[in-house]
Order: sequence, then structure tokens, then C-alpha cells
Amino acid sequence: MDEKPARPPIALLTDFGLDDPFVGVMKGVILGINPHARIVDLSHGVRAQDVAHGAFLLAACAAYFPKGTVFCAVVDPGVGSNRKPVLVQTRDFILVGPDNGLLWQAANDCGIKQVFHLNRQTYFLPDVSNTFHGRDIFSPVAAHASLGGDLSRFGDPVSQLAVLAQPQPRKTDQGLVLTVLHVDTFGNIVLNITAEAFRCHASNGFCLTRDGRQISRACPTYAAAPENTPVLVPASHGYMEIAVKNGSAAQRLKAGRSDTFLLIPG
Amino acid sequence: MDEKPARPPIALLTDFGLDDPFVGVMKGVILGINPHARIVDLSHGVRAQDVAHGAFLLAACAAYFPKGTVFCAVVDPGVGSNRKPVLVQTRDFILVGPDNGLLWQAANDCGIKQVFHLNRQTYFLPDVSNTFHGRDIFSPVAAHASLGGDLSRFGDPVSQLAVLAQPQPRKTDQGLVLTVLHVDTFGNIVLNITAEAFRCHASNGFCLTRDGRQISRACPTYAAAPENTPVLVPASHGYMEIAVKNGSAAQRLKAGRSDTFLLIPG
Amino acid sequence: MDEKPARPPIALLTDFGLDDPFVGVMKGVILGINPHARIVDLSHGVRAQDVAHGAFLLAACAAYFPKGTVFCAVVDPGVGSNRKPVLVQTRDFILVGPDNGLLWQAANDCGIKQVFHLNRQTYFLPDVSNTFHGRDIFSPVAAHASLGGDLSRFGDPVSQLAVLAQPQPRKTDQGLVLTVLHVDTFGNIVLNITAEAFRCHASNGFCLTRDGRQISRACPTYAAAPENTPVLVPASHGYMEIAVKNGSAAQRLKAGRSDTFLLIPG
Repeated sequence: MDEKPARPPIALLTDFGLDDPFVGVMKGVILGINPHARIVDLSHGVRAQDVAHGAFLLAACAAYFPKGTVFCAVVDPGVGSNRKPVLVQTRDFILVGPDNGLLWQAANDCGIKQVFHLNRQTYFLPDVSNTFHGRDIFSPVAAHASLGGDLSRFGDPVSQLAVLAQPQPRKTDQGLVLTVLHVDTFGNIVLNITAEAFRCHASNGFCLTRDGRQISRACPTYAAAPENTPVLVPASHGYMEIAVKNGSAAQRLKAGRSDTFLLIPG
Repeated sequence: MDEKPARPPIALLTDFGLDDPFVGVMKGVILGINPHARIVDLSHGVRAQDVAHGAFLLAACAAYFPKGTVFCAVVDPGVGSNRKPVLVQTRDFILVGPDNGLLWQAANDCGIKQVFHLNRQTYFLPDVSNTFHGRDIFSPVAAHASLGGDLSRFGDPVSQLAVLAQPQPRKTDQGLVLTVLHVDTFGNIVLNITAEAFRCHASNGFCLTRDGRQISRACPTYAAAPENTPVLVPASHGYMEIAVKNGSAAQRLKAGRSDTFLLIPG
Repeated sequence: MDEKPARPPIALLTDFGLDDPFVGVMKGVILGINPHARIVDLSHGVRAQDVAHGAFLLAACAAYFPKGTVFCAVVDPGVGSNRKPVLVQTRDFILVGPDNGLLWQAANDCGIKQVFHLNRQTYFLPDVSNTFHGRDIFSPVAAHASLGGDLSRFGDPVSQLAVLAQPQPRKTDQGLVLTVLHVDTFGNIVLNITAEAFRCHASNGFCLTRDGRQISRACPTYAAAPENTPVLVPASHGYMEIAVKNGSAAQRLKAGRSDTFLLIPG
């Protein structure tokens, strides 16, 4: 049995989708450097060039991966410009990607130990394009990092990482303005309020409104919801989400990422 | 060379799609428990919450996997309700998922040896949500099962599995009513009649009708079909399918899953 | 650590998409033959039955994979007809697929050493269907080939491979007619002119036209482009592509694969 300790996995997060061969090529590059690499697709469904969306997904998911995982994250509208490629060492993980805010939330949640500017070309592909650093810089560095060894070999230490915080609930006289962080495949609408914070605000009931539509019921599971009625459910990543049983809340409410709802305590 | 006997693969089947990080997170959880796991995506394109569709795909494909494969299947509209999480040991495979009918056909085809109710929380993630048992229960149990060992450690034996049979051809005075089990990426329409049964019914020719459209030709291959003409072809999983050469039968005939056709013997 | 030399990866390229279980089943078959196989999805987003599109993607990407990689490529409208299944040994790679032109460009770029007609059924699945040779012939042969050994065991030598060259730029009195080879997820439009050839033609400026729209600016990166303006950018695979910063050139210009543009030197 293949029971020796395994190297940590490499997890990929991009906005490349899976139709194009971009992700496949990154994996080819990785296996050329670390033929034993275990590569996992975290998601390639980040909205095109939406750095904050990628940052949310990365931060929401990283904790489910084994200690030592190397995350290679590429949502990079500034590819080829002067934004820095970086490697971040956190308490439990290594994060590789552009320093455009994409890595900040996940890195901060895990406890940042050191940040390195990726400026040692010896760890890049020989020819670096201006349009695909996922292939030319981030994949090869992630592959080398997955082999272990001193991380300072990849570049000069950097004192800080570009900050990109997710939007916070905003207090107004009418109530709490909440922002949609994500809409999933099922049409569930993830809001920027944790289940814990929601319980505080809604202890005496609540009304969540948008465009004249009102939601006033919370349920512990999808199955417990009435048919055809949008309800709030504590979602799997710790945030509250709007769901419609066996249906799509996003279609029903015509709401998408970055739209807002107003939460009025009861 | 890495030639020692390998552990069996873990094959995933869900209705999660690949845009969201749901599947990626399941893989992170699996690798945290079995770092050597070989994980294969069987399909994440089951129609949302369509348990019978997932059951069809699982049963149609399982036999192509190596003996010992652990199937982790999650199409689970009742997540968090009182439907049971189960593990099924069959002659050749292990199946893990909700006991809502999803596993029945595949398990039955393979020969059910034992069913266990997954009620030993020590094999779950420490915090079990109400909305994502794929991550919190089914992935960790599948990962532990892929390590080998006595399967009774996962829970109490259960005497039977929830049954969900695929629809059968239905005899009427007009002919045989057939149901669409699946429409594939190419627009091929898979019907619930095996190639063998079709040969019996159509030995003297046939007419397949729906909404006034008629199909009366069968071909051994796609390439042998005339252009622009829907024909019946024996498909790769043993069922007959309606195909249009270099085109989409589903678009042409405006037919989707669960629609019916009438087969009139010649 | 699992540090013995690894077997080469198997890279899959098909037009099957990822919704259906076709690709998952191919992986099940492969792992049944080579349980240690490292399988990479190069792309399953080839346009349905568009052999030339698959040939372009395969040739554009193969060089990024490690030496010894076994490519299993299936875009196969003639499945079950008399087109030959083949294995091509090149200097660096092994290619397996139908002999319909799909493999030619990649094989030729790498230097063809030998071609074998896959006619030894002992390396196929026991039952070969007429509609899914990806599962029944190409996957099992690729899996066996990834185990090493003499490639002549798979079949008789063939003197040549079906040729399918990509369209070349075409000179006219008005200028150079360019053809769209590919439109990527971001809506970037890849043209059949290399960055090098473009520099020759556009050394004194240029105008690229289609349907009255004109593009006259080239940029080294996406970030350097002005907003809302289609520009030419040297893309990562060596060809020029039309891009719109933070937008979709394909939507803006309503252009798709096989459409043409006219390049008029300045």
C-alpha cells in the first residue's frame, strides 16, 4: 500500500472556468516539477476578473483543506502590470498568487507569518508571458513550494499584503444593509452576515426586504422550508443564505452578487 | 516507480456542479483523512435535486470502475431532515450517501451485502451543518472507508435501503410508452429501453412518435445516420438513444428528461 | 515521502464536457488498468464534434506537459465507422485517439517517430461499443501505454497519420485574411497569426477590420489597454488575440470560431 507520508496537496482557485485548457496546462506545468503532486480544483467558477469574489471563496473554504496545503489562486486582471506576484506563509497553509487582495482574507484568517515577493525567476517557466502568469509563475512556484524546503528561496520578504476586506453589514436608520457575497449553483443567495450575528439581530423576528419583496422566516434546513417561499437558512460556510426549497432564490428574487437587502429586526 | 498496490479510488457523484467550491471542499476533506486518496469526478452534472437522475447515472457507470471503488454520491434535497446517511457494501463496491433512493439501483445491480446507518460521529467532521452533509458526513466517511478496515465501525446495520426504481416501459393499446432517462451534452436522448428489448419489439420495423414527429430508422453508429434525421442508436450504456448526426436530437425534438415517446412495432 | 520516480501523467482532451459521466467513466477504466495513474483534464470544452478545434487546443498545450505524458484525445464524430484508432509515438509524448486529424498538428510539432493502428483487442475493454471508443478503446490503451513497455504491442505500424492543418493567414489584395481559431472563457478572440508574424506585418501600424469595426491598437498586456476598446494582445500560446479590458471581445465584436478578420498593414 502507498502508505508513506504524502506531500501536501496543491489546491487551485481561478476564474478560468473549465472549458478552456488554462487549468489543464497549469496542471501539466505542476506535474513537470512535482510528478507526485496531488492537485485539487477548489473552484474555477470565480466570476471573471472579480477579485473580491475569489477572495471570498478562498477564505470560506481554505480551512477544510489539510495542513500544509499549497493554494495557487489566480484571479488576475492586472496580469503583466506592476502588481506583485507573492507567496504567503500562514500558520497552516501556503498561498501563491497575485498581490491584488485575492489572498488577504484567507491569509489573515489563517494568521500571516511571512510574505515573499516572487522575484526569483529560476522558479518560473523559462519564458514568462504577459498574459498567463497562472501558467508561467504561480503554478511553477506552487509546485516547487509543494516539494518543501525554505520558502525564502522564492523571493524577498515583503512587509505587507494588499488588503481587500469583504463588505460588512452597514447600519442605517431603517435597518442593516446586507450585501450578496455569492450566489451558488442552486440559486442560494449568500449574505454577508454570519449565523451568529443574525441570531442577535433577529432574536425577536425579522423582515428582510428588497424591491418590495419581504422574507420573514428562518429555517434550520432546506427541507424544513415551506414550498415556494424564500427563507433564511444558516449556510455551510457560517453565513446566512436565502433559499427556496427545490428552487432558485436568485431567480425568484432576481438578485445577484453585490446586490443588497435590508434587514429590519422584529 | 510507485508500483505498490494502490488503495481503491473514491468516485464522486453530485448535483453540485463545478462552478461552486462544494466539490473542491469535499476533496480537501478527503485528503485530510486519506492523503493518498485517488479521487475521480464521476459527474457533478446531475440535475439539481433530481435523485432519480443521479441514481440512473450512478447505476449506468459504476461497473466501469475498479473493484473496491468507494462511491460518494450526494443528491440530497432532504439534507438535515430525518433521511438516513448510509454506507452500502456490495459485492464489488462501497457506496456512501443519503438513503433517499439515490444508491438503490447501483447497489442492487452490484449485489447488496450489507447496509450501515452512518451514526458514528467520530467519522464525521467535528461540526456537522444542516446543509452540507457531502462535506461533513459523506466525504469523511468515504475517505475513512477508502483506508480499508471493518465497515461495521461506521454504524448500525440496517435491514433495507430506500428503493427507487427507474421508470419501466409501459404497455398500452397504442404501443410501448418510453420515458427519457437522460439527455447528454450532445443532445442525445436516452430512452428507458435496452438495445436487447428494442430488438424484440422492432424486429419488423418500428415507429417512435412524439408530438406528431416520427422516427423510424435505427443505425449501428452515429456516422451511419443520414444528415438531419433523428435515428435510434444503441448507446454506450446499453440503452437505446435518439441521435441526430452532428446535431442535437434534444433541440430538434424539444424533448427533455422525463418526457415520453410512443414506440409502435412495425 | 512518495519520492520514487512517478509514471508519466495521462492527459485527457475531449468534446464530452463535464456534465455527463463520460469523462468520469474513462477515468474509472484507466484506474482499473493503472491504479497509480495521474490523470489530468487538459480540456473537455472542445466544441462538439469540431475536430479542428480539438487539434488546435491539443497542439497549443502539449508542450507544457512533462516528457512522457500520454495524451488521450477524443473528438470523434466518426466513432464506430472505418476511421482508424491510432497511437502516435513522438519525441516527447504518446498520443492516443482517432485518426481523423485530431492528433496531427500536435504530433507533427513534437516530431512523429511511429504510428500504430490500434488493432490488438486484448488492450481494449472486452465489449467494444459503436458509440464510445473513448471508454472502450482509447482509455484502456492510454492506461496500458502509461505503464511503459514496447508500444508496438498495441498494433501494426502505420506509415502516415491523417493530416489536418490549421487554416493559415491568406493574402489578398486588401490585406491578410485571418481566421478565429478559438474564443476563450473571457471572450478573447484568438487569431491564426503568431506574435512574430504580426510584428512583421504591423511594423508601421495596422488596421484590423470586420463588419465595419476597426481595431488599430496593440497592447503588451490586458491591463495596459484602454477601457471599452478592443485591442490586440500577444496571447499566452504564441498567437495574437483580440481582447477587451475587463470585458468580452467576442460579445463586443459578435465574432466566433471560424469567423474572419482582415488585417491591413499601416
